[in-house]
Amino acid sequence: MAEISQNKKDLAAARAKTRFVVENMTNYLYGGRPNVEQRRYIIDLLAREPIFQKDDWAWLNHTESVKRGIAMSTRLAEIKMEHELHDLDFATLVEAVDDSLPILLHHGAFIPVINSQGSDEQIEKWIPLAESYQIIGCYAQTELGHGSNVSGLETTATFIKDTDEWEIDSTSFTAAKWWIGGLGTMCTHAVVQAKLIIDGKDYGAHVFVVPIRSLEDHKPFPGIQVGDIGPKAYGGFNKMENGFACFNKYRIPRENMLMRFSKVSREGVYTKPPHDKLSYGSMVLLRSVLIRQMGQFISRSTTVATRYLTVRRQFNNPTQRNDADINPGLETQVINYPMVQNRLFPMIAQAYALFAAGSVMMMMYINLMTGLSKGQIDALAEVHAMSSALKSYCTTIGAGGAEECRKLMGGHGFSYFSGVAHIFAHIVPSNTYEGDNYVLTQQMARYLLKEIKTARSDPDKVTPFSKYLLQTLNRDQFSRSFCRVKTAEDWLKPEIQLAAFEHRCARLALELSDAIEADSNKVWSDYNMECYRLSHAHAQYVIVLWFIQSIREAQDPEADEDRRATPETIKVLEKLSNLHALHTMQTNLADFAEDAYFSPAQCQSLRRQVKDLVASLADDVVGLVDAFDHPDFLLDSALGASDGDAYKRLWDKAQTEPLNQREVCEGYEEYIRPLLKKYGEVKL
Amino acid sequence: MAEISQNKKDLAAARAKTRFVVENMTNYLYGGRPNVEQRRYIIDLLAREPIFQKDDWAWLNHTESVKRGIAMSTRLAEIKMEHELHDLDFATLVEAVDDSLPILLHHGAFIPVINSQGSDEQIEKWIPLAESYQIIGCYAQTELGHGSNVSGLETTATFIKDTDEWEIDSTSFTAAKWWIGGLGTMCTHAVVQAKLIIDGKDYGAHVFVVPIRSLEDHKPFPGIQVGDIGPKAYGGFNKMENGFACFNKYRIPRENMLMRFSKVSREGVYTKPPHDKLSYGSMVLLRSVLIRQMGQFISRSTTVATRYLTVRRQFNNPTQRNDADINPGLETQVINYPMVQNRLFPMIAQAYALFAAGSVMMMMYINLMTGLSKGQIDALAEVHAMSSALKSYCTTIGAGGAEECRKLMGGHGFSYFSGVAHIFAHIVPSNTYEGDNYVLTQQMARYLLKEIKTARSDPDKVTPFSKYLLQTLNRDQFSRSFCRVKTAEDWLKPEIQLAAFEHRCARLALELSDAIEADSNKVWSDYNMECYRLSHAHAQYVIVLWFIQSIREAQDPEADEDRRATPETIKVLEKLSNLHALHTMQTNLADFAEDAYFSPAQCQSLRRQVKDLVASLADDVVGLVDAFDHPDFLLDSALGASDGDAYKRLWDKAQTEPLNQREVCEGYEEYIRPLLKKYGEVKL
Repeated sequence: MAEISQNKKDLAAARAKTRFVVENMTNYLYGGRPNVEQRRYIIDLLAREPIFQKDDWAWLNHTESVKRGIAMSTRLAEIKMEHELHDLDFATLVEAVDDSLPILLHHGAFIPVINSQGSDEQIEKWIPLAESYQIIGCYAQTELGHGSNVSGLETTATFIKDTDEWEIDSTSFTAAKWWIGGLGTMCTHAVVQAKLIIDGKDYGAHVFVVPIRSLEDHKPFPGIQVGDIGPKAYGGFNKMENGFACFNKYRIPRENMLMRFSKVSREGVYTKPPHDKLSYGSMVLLRSVLIRQMGQFISRSTTVATRYLTVRRQFNNPTQRNDADINPGLETQVINYPMVQNRLFPMIAQAYALFAAGSVMMMMYINLMTGLSKGQIDALAEVHAMSSALKSYCTTIGAGGAEECRKLMGGHGFSYFSGVAHIFAHIVPSNTYEGDNYVLTQQMARYLLKEIKTARSDPDKVTPFSKYLLQTLNRDQFSRSFCRVKTAEDWLKPEIQLAAFEHRCARLALELSDAIEADSNKVWSDYNMECYRLSHAHAQYVIVLWFIQSIREAQDPEADEDRRATPETIKVLEKLSNLHALHTMQTNLADFAEDAYFSPAQCQSLRRQVKDLVASLADDVVGLVDAFDHPDFLLDSALGASDGDAYKRLWDKAQTEPLNQREVCEGYEEYIRPLLKKYGEVKL
Repeated sequence: MAEISQNKKDLAAARAKTRFVVENMTNYLYGGRPNVEQRRYIIDLLAREPIFQKDDWAWLNHTESVKRGIAMSTRLAEIKMEHELHDLDFATLVEAVDDSLPILLHHGAFIPVINSQGSDEQIEKWIPLAESYQIIGCYAQTELGHGSNVSGLETTATFIKDTDEWEIDSTSFTAAKWWIGGLGTMCTHAVVQAKLIIDGKDYGAHVFVVPIRSLEDHKPFPGIQVGDIGPKAYGGFNKMENGFACFNKYRIPRENMLMRFSKVSREGVYTKPPHDKLSYGSMVLLRSVLIRQMGQFISRSTTVATRYLTVRRQFNNPTQRNDADINPGLETQVINYPMVQNRLFPMIAQAYALFAAGSVMMMMYINLMTGLSKGQIDALAEVHAMSSALKSYCTTIGAGGAEECRKLMGGHGFSYFSGVAHIFAHIVPSNTYEGDNYVLTQQMARYLLKEIKTARSDPDKVTPFSKYLLQTLNRDQFSRSFCRVKTAEDWLKPEIQLAAFEHRCARLALELSDAIEADSNKVWSDYNMECYRLSHAHAQYVIVLWFIQSIREAQDPEADEDRRATPETIKVLEKLSNLHALHTMQTNLADFAEDAYFSPAQCQSLRRQVKDLVASLADDVVGLVDAFDHPDFLLDSALGASDGDAYKRLWDKAQTEPLNQREVCEGYEEYIRPLLKKYGEVKL
């Protein structure tokens, strides 16, 4: 196979059509060349390490996978130490691992919780040990019987005044800590959420540092039963063990309660925290990180699908071919079918939109924390609601998008070697963890209902992202408002797009507010589904808005040269932004049409405009996914590698299959041969 | 734990609320008591066999899974022989296996293809050998480079007149047969699709019986390279090996070409088949079976979710509790939240609708085959289009529904032990096999466009399921038609529901027809997305229709007593039918609202009616899923077993985890301990 395969030629030819400079687009996506270079450097640190290669992942059983996860965890820690990586670089490193590991909650929760909720002395004691891996921690909140309802946790920590200790106890087996990443095999310590009890009085859930395993021999301490809860759906999270633990009147010193906010004295006197929402910051961070990650994951799925569908040819549809001049006689590239383009290209646009939204959300988090450190808590409610709404929406479309990309690739998409199945399995639990995606949407709905009240009482105090609520003040006028699109081109105006999203959010918020006021027999949870609709509508609105703004900023002539987008780059970005906005409308068309805000004629012209925008991107999509800058090591896909050699790679991968190392399969003598001879024996 | 757990009490209490006789409902679902008894008998045949137990499935690696699949295949064949099971019972047996096996295509394709395409002599030669397992076969069509486009297959079968043989050759590695179930390890023979070539002339794809492995020692014959293509997405199909094969000028006798229709004589003279669509029957069968299976799979997923969410309690929302009188002080059962009910209950209704649709589709297939055997081919086009449209729609909602049920269960749903992840992984490839779900919808669209022409030229000849197209003949009147709902109760009238679905299908068909006529520059594939929309709309219409009809038939006073539904059963079925129809409208609301067929007020009242219907089913859902009659052996779910003891089962399952059989995990000495000592060593 010395000659260049048709697959490779096809991808190279498609790549050559790109009408913008890919590096300029990559700079836009990552916020400048230094960031791009740094990301490459970090990923390359892993790519060079044998233990992070993925070649045999498919052949490992559950026990072997967990053991691999431990080995990878150890090496990850060493790399962090050897290269003295700070938090941001370490986050990139963790993303590049491309799987969950038992050590991740040590960094993602154990250390942050001690840092935020420990007193200065506690931080001084535990953090250096944790940062140098003399202890390894995890975060034990969820129980077998309780997840969303933290205040229902059953584990108790009872103050024993005589010995100045806490007695940690799982009062029943439903109180067993469950789903705790790292607890099953690797950790030596856990931060445990337990109900604090003094003299029979329950003070609610508090946080305790609990030694789990001996530093001598790693055996669990007496009074603790600990283990792994078993494998996960779809083969996801299979290198992370998720553990359980039961405590049987297990004693720890009083000082192991984290006491930055609440305190308990030697005498057993309890002191309340000054503000009950100071711990929201870490939730906002975890959710903001997830939003950014979804951009990464959708961009990876679409990279694989775009490349593979460019080299896959099926049927000869001369009119769908745009390469008939250079490749006469070949079948049509699958990516040229409108059926594929209209599903795939909007997802590419979505990935771009989520890159923009991820950056804004992270900036909002940083500004929030800066404010909080100065005692400003005004922004907390909005940022918390925003991170909740976006987490719910983005992780929903992230997992759905990965699976849609897999299906777009047809039969071969169902091969493990596609690389996309792994993405879905890896991210789909995010739909139910860090706040279930349905439960979570109540945050934004509640926030907007409050803003409606503010709009009525004190319109100047409505925050910028809720300004659209002001239009509901004149109900009569609002109910007669309609979309101003007259020509097909009108759809491409950002102000028209934003007005439509604003109208929809305002209407849904008003309807919800009216419904609640109209019926006093109903309770909040009767409106769960309406909250979900409203929250996702708001999330879509801000993502559309932020993507538009990010393109405007990229044109700023004041910006550093390496961050400034060229006119060619801007042109494609504007197409993506238009496609993202209009396709999101089309997908949720009932929300815009059911109150006649869109007329029947507008609905029709919107659909046509989406199709036209999709078609206009055909020559740029390979460049657009190249710009995501995902190396082959990260993609780990036979179908989506950068050289396009899909069939060859699929073939080569199959040859590595352990089953294929034997001429006659295991099970022949034991099963197949006896069956073939059992009911007769033919000679052929 | 001798006492009865709260979980068990909760499920028993919910079950006791059922307002109909579950057995009567089960009889309705399976078409009478004898069918119910027979299904139970068949499933029990497997439940008693050690090799079909699922306890260790989660711990097997890929090689072990495939070997297990071989062992299960062998025993399945023996059970069929020992109990002399006919086709229908064997199909039930295969469904009860709950996984794909390398022997399934022996029964599902190898034998049927020889039976339908072999001459009488060929049937006489091969079928007895296959039915007594003296040979084991598979069906080799798909290649590395070609799936959907059968006429693009590259494997050749060249007639060698001198020796009266065919020379089978994979002309390049993209011609390798790929994805062939059973080819990788188990089969001795394959039915191979290859281009028939005589004297350099290509006669297109034909079918040949090709010996693959020696009956002496199971070694592949010289000239054949054969193996397994590797693991599949999400751990699905992991007991089925999907194989590949390359042929290097491999010779087989001329008689091995299947010659019922096309023939080649000793002299190399080719004779054409009389009708080119006679082989469509087997496609219709495979698709019809899938439609019925989706009812089974959605019913299993909803069974698990309904039971688990009945015993799961979270938060104390007094107003959402309907058991506060008997269980004061407990948290709220999750199933009482509208957020859960409005997602779960419509899926239960959908499962019921698919049971009805599956029966009708299977009856259409049987009638078709009876007709074909008498030379009547009139019905072929419609039945083929119908099976295509329904296969696409039903497998889409089947896989999506399983995943939605898994997510409904929150955190624990992501455990492998939920049992639902396995369902998704098992059925999701059906979205891309047996015709990709997007590609396939062209069949129905093409059929309806033809029917529009018939409506214009010869309105009496329009078939019953396309009668709605007649309303488009008066365009002016059609464009001004609107939904006649005035009161909330109007939504519950079947004629109103059917009129809405008919209007929507008619509009979409007319728009597509107009678009094609208006622009001669466009080609068929430009309308792929419109075909998908129209085809799914038609599928939804006939499912709504068939469910309504099936409830009417169940009230027939002439019917056998064991098939007659009681008034209580009918009452619940009518709620389910209404919910299914209205929720399907709500999910696709833009299609009904964007041309103003539904007014804004109607959209609002529809949403309210759906919520009311959902709420009205709360006391019956446990009975409704019990009626699906799925034994615990089949469900294999810690969360959804019939006794409701979810937490106990989840706990017990975790204790069987191989990792938990050691006090200190593998990898401690090698990885964890060195890390803990590397950067310092604390004594705690």
